[in-house]
Formats: sequence, structure tokens, C-alpha cells
Amino acid sequence: MQPELPSSDLVARVAAVRAALDGRTMVLSHSTNIRWLTGFGGSLGWIVIGPERFVLVTDGRYRDRAAADLAAGGLDAELEVRLKRPELVDAVVAAADGQPVVAEAEHLSHASWTALAERLDLQPAGGVVEQLRRTKDAGELARMARAAQIADDTLAAVVPLLSERPTEADVRDELEYRMRRNGADGPSYDTIVASGPQLAARPHHQTSRRTIVADDTVIIDVGALVDGYHSDMTRTFVIGEVSDEQQEIYELVLRAQLAGLAALHPGVPTAEVDEACRAVFREAGYDDLFIHGTGHGVGLDIHEEPFAAATSTAVLVEGDVVTVEPGLYRDGFGGVRIEDLVSVTAAGGATLTKLPKDSPCPRSPQTT
Amino acid sequence: MQPELPSSDLVARVAAVRAALDGRTMVLSHSTNIRWLTGFGGSLGWIVIGPERFVLVTDGRYRDRAAADLAAGGLDAELEVRLKRPELVDAVVAAADGQPVVAEAEHLSHASWTALAERLDLQPAGGVVEQLRRTKDAGELARMARAAQIADDTLAAVVPLLSERPTEADVRDELEYRMRRNGADGPSYDTIVASGPQLAARPHHQTSRRTIVADDTVIIDVGALVDGYHSDMTRTFVIGEVSDEQQEIYELVLRAQLAGLAALHPGVPTAEVDEACRAVFREAGYDDLFIHGTGHGVGLDIHEEPFAAATSTAVLVEGDVVTVEPGLYRDGFGGVRIEDLVSVTAAGGATLTKLPKDSPCPRSPQTT
Repeated sequence: MQPELPSSDLVARVAAVRAALDGRTMVLSHSTNIRWLTGFGGSLGWIVIGPERFVLVTDGRYRDRAAADLAAGGLDAELEVRLKRPELVDAVVAAADGQPVVAEAEHLSHASWTALAERLDLQPAGGVVEQLRRTKDAGELARMARAAQIADDTLAAVVPLLSERPTEADVRDELEYRMRRNGADGPSYDTIVASGPQLAARPHHQTSRRTIVADDTVIIDVGALVDGYHSDMTRTFVIGEVSDEQQEIYELVLRAQLAGLAALHPGVPTAEVDEACRAVFREAGYDDLFIHGTGHGVGLDIHEEPFAAATSTAVLVEGDVVTVEPGLYRDGFGGVRIEDLVSVTAAGGATLTKLPKDSPCPRSPQTT
Repeated sequence: MQPELPSSDLVARVAAVRAALDGRTMVLSHSTNIRWLTGFGGSLGWIVIGPERFVLVTDGRYRDRAAADLAAGGLDAELEVRLKRPELVDAVVAAADGQPVVAEAEHLSHASWTALAERLDLQPAGGVVEQLRRTKDAGELARMARAAQIADDTLAAVVPLLSERPTEADVRDELEYRMRRNGADGPSYDTIVASGPQLAARPHHQTSRRTIVADDTVIIDVGALVDGYHSDMTRTFVIGEVSDEQQEIYELVLRAQLAGLAALHPGVPTAEVDEACRAVFREAGYDDLFIHGTGHGVGLDIHEEPFAAATSTAVLVEGDVVTVEPGLYRDGFGGVRIEDLVSVTAAGGATLTKLPKDSPCPRSPQTT
């Protein structure tokens, strides 16, 4: 058994949301935001939170689980269970208690919005919880670190398989199975195994049944899930002898990634982190092959604030957990991407994913 | 290698949607509906379809894949790729060509709806594609039958493990891994393994790390995914000697399930299918332990039209594929649920899931 992980202070989160709302009442419908605030992990729920009220509305499936989750978090929220959708809306309206309400226009269907707006003074207010969720506490960091370690250990164990002519799907299946055996609740997202001159050139490749062969570049993008928290890591391997071009591209991507990592400090705009990577490629004349952003925040969602691209306006704060994942892709060559998950601390970036990345040789991780 | 499965006629689907729209123009945003209509499997896309227009709008990640998917379906849709969200909205507005538009109020966020409604005459129209999707063609039935067979074979192979004191998670991990090894693209949903006097009594249990021991009832709800199509099956096992009460409850649930299956015919209200199961429990004095609906449609979504509960208003049609899954649950006893996936034909229900269900003894499936 692994040691117990520290718990999060949900009572403090409720206070922080109330402070951000500054007297307003909010309806939350986004399941990730509800989980962060209450620990309730069901797929359907509504929260009404205001200066006086704190109500979780859910359906009959979740009666016991919602009560248990609220109790585990030490929260004195009222729990309202309703069996049918119209009754859920009734309960939300009743909980609002005649107050004007703000809600998550990005996360509520137009149909649900309309049903509420007929009976409440409803205005959009996005991002209230998302902004608070950015700053990870010790309990969250511990879960993401454990998820990262599970992915590290699992990929290290699976890497020798790459030289045995597996399919991409074979590698994915072993990774996802063994991550669970190593204690993950599941994969963090659909594991990407992208191989060879064409498929590794697609950053958003869907793992296929292609056989991995000599001379391939193989991009493996894998993470684990622990208590709802995600890890995210990419390593790239070359099968057999590494060509001069493969070595050159690999070292360039690694240099760009290290430059991105070095740029991570509280107060730094994420666009500067993106530029730190992009500048390395530009100097080498390769910047047109870097066709995606440099990174994103990670937590209860695999993609969350802050995002790091050339046009991003976010500024890093202590407690952000972000990816740094530059890559180069060319049809006929394949691709190289190197990604770590990093906690932003007062001293700079603290890398949570620790699998060695100094070489594209698939044997090197075994020696650690 | 498995034999090639028949393909679906996407051109006919486009014609059917245009006929249902009867001259109107529709914006589709629900990814399952878009996949059904075009074969495009990306996570972000919009379709504008009207008497003259047929446009797929997506972002840069999906440029190649969208073009390939449209070509594979023989569709002459226009493809509009935009890089940023506001540009996606611009492209949707342009494709609407000044016409009034209907859209999926249940599947579009209020924020997106508002962005479109500022520039288009926009009205809600739900369910147009959902109703057409109900009727499965030969290609869809073949994929669901293969998915069902993979789950059958995999569960039969994993059942002997139940007697070796595995955890619920162990059983789930083996099922999900081996379904993929047997050709599934993945599990159809989070596999449920619910065991023992308390956990098997929860129909919506999340698979835990509890160890399965003698005298447990063990409910296993498992399906496979093939080309986006889902299967769905539940079997219940008793570990060790089957007690009189366990045998009695098992036979009662089986009798209810067979009654539900026998009720499946085109023209029959789904509420009557639900009642067919419920009546068996009522006669035995157990109806208060059947605490969920009898079934639901299955296809590209694991839960889709038509639903079968006491209050349902749907009527079965030929081509529906539905589950029949009555169960009884009591804290301290555990639970029994038996579920098959069934195609509704002119001659009645044709069961796609074929794993034997005559006995709760975990050894019986091996002998098939």
C-alpha cells in the first residue's frame, strides 16, 4: 500500500468562492468545478452557493455518494435529491431563494440556461472556480506527483517492448493496463502512441494498429489518473540506430523544452514560456514545424487554465501546474515531442514527471 | 484478422436529415450526431446542413482527418478549417448564408448559442438526428454484434478469476485489457464490478478495491467499443455455494428479464417492456427492490433513445437496439442484475449478447 495522501481543505475553498462572488449567488453546473469545491464526483449535479446558501442538488443515483462525499469534506452543504430533470431545476430555483444568480454560460446547455432564466434573474459569469482551481494545494500536488510517478514507472517498464515490433495499440494497451496495476485509477486521457514517418508527424494522432519498426520515431504521450487528478508526459524514442537527422531534431526539441522549463517562474506571462521554446526552433530554422502551443494547465481537468501559446494572456502564479511540450513534426520524417508536468514554485519549475529524456534510445530508461 | 464489416450509407443519412428538416437549415454541434452523419470522429466540429449547404467546420487539429473521413463516406461536404474559436463561429455564420437556423439547444452551451444568436435567426430544434439514429443499419448492427461478441468472449475467459479472491478492480482491469486484446477499440463505458452484501446493492457502484470473497453476489456490467459503437451486458455470479435466497432472487430476475425480452416488438411502447419486467417482481412482492428503469437505446452513445421506464412515452420500431436489464438490490444481500443488448426486428428481439445466463455459478460460462 502507498502512504496516505494529504487531504484538501474544502471548507477553505467554499470560503474562497464566496469571497470571489462578493455577495453574489452562483449556480455551478460543471462537474469538475463541483468536484473541486465539494469532493462530489458524480456526473450530474448543481451547486447553489451564495452568502447564506450552499446547496448540492443531484439525482437519486447519487443520494448516498453525495452525502458521503460532503461528510468526508467536512462540508455542511444542504443536499437536495430529486428524481427527474424538471424537479432538479425546481430545486435549484428554490435554493436561489429569489436572489439574482450568475451561472457558467460555457458549461450550461442553452436548454438548461433557458429553463433557469425563465424563473431567475440569470447572468453569465465564467471562470470564477477555474481561476481558483489553478492554484494547487499540497493534497493536489501529492496526487499529481503520484500520478506522474506511476506513468514514469510504467513507461520505463514498457519501453523494452518497443523493439519487439509491437503495434501502437499493443504499447497503449500495456501502458494503460500496467498503470492501473501500479495504482492508477485509470489513464489520464487516451494514450497516444504515434509512430513512423507519417503517423508520428501528427500531433493529435489516434493510436492505430500500425506495427512499430526499425528507424521509426515513436511519440508516447501518457498520463495516469489518481483521485481525479491527471498527469501528462511525452517521451520520444527512435527504434534501432538513431540517424544523424533524428539525433539533431531530438536534441533541438530537448533544448527547446529545457528553455521552456527554465522560463517557468511566478509572474512570467505564459506567452513568454511559449516564446522561449519557439525561439530555439526559430534560430535553427525549424519554427514552422512547431504547429501547436507549448503547454496547458493540468489538474482535475487534463486541459485547464493557464494555457501557453503565442497569443496567451495568462501570467504564471505560484501553485500553477503546467505542461511544457514543444515538438517538431514533418511528414516523411515523423516527429519528436518532449513533455513534462511541472509545478510552478517561488524558486521556478519543479518537474513532477521524472523519466529520463536525455536520449531517444528506448533502452535508456531501463538503466535508471 | 476479423472479416471486414459492412459500411453505412452516409449519403442516404444526409438525405434523411434534409428530409426531416423540410427546407430548414440546421447547425449540429453534438459530436455523436456529427459522427453519425459524416463519419468525422473529432471532438470539435460543427455541421451546417440545409437544402443547398452541407458544411463541416472544425479546427486545425482535424484538417487531415476530417477530409479523410468525409472522403471515406463519399460525402461532398465543404470543409472549413479555422484556427480559433471566434473564427469557427464566423465560418458557421457564413455557411448559414443568411437563412434562419435551428440548432441543438440541449447540446450547445449557452455561451455558444448566444454567440450565434447575435448574428443568426436561431431557434431550438432538438432530436432531429437522435430520432434518425435510433434505426440501426446493417453496418451498425454488425459493429454492435462484434462488440457484444468481444465482451461475451472476454467475460467468459475472465470468470474463472472470480473464485481466486481478486479485487473488483482486478476483474475490471483484466476485462478492459483483454477486450482490447480481443479487438475492441476500448471499453464501452467504465466497467462495473460490484460485489458483496453492500456494494452489489448499489446499481451505480464505482468499481472499488474490495476483495471478492465466498458467498458474494458479483454484478459485472461490461461492454466493448467497435468503430464508435457500444455493447452493453450484465451478468451476476455467486461465489462458492449458492444459497437458497440467492438462487431464488437470481431466478426471479432471470424470469423478469426473459419477460422483458419477450415483450420487444415493433409498435410496443417501451413502458410496456418496463412493465413486463416489473410485473414479475410485483407478483413476487419484490418490486420495491427494482430501483431503476428497464433499459435504454444503445448505438454511438451508450445511453440514447429509446429509454424504457415506467414513465417513458417511446414506442419501439424495427431497427432499435435496446438493453433489457432488470435487477433487484437489497443492502445486506447484495444484488442481481441480468442485461442483454437486443436488436428489435419484425420477428421480435434478437439478442446480440449471447453469454449464458441460466445460472449464477461462475464456472458455467467456461463450458460453453
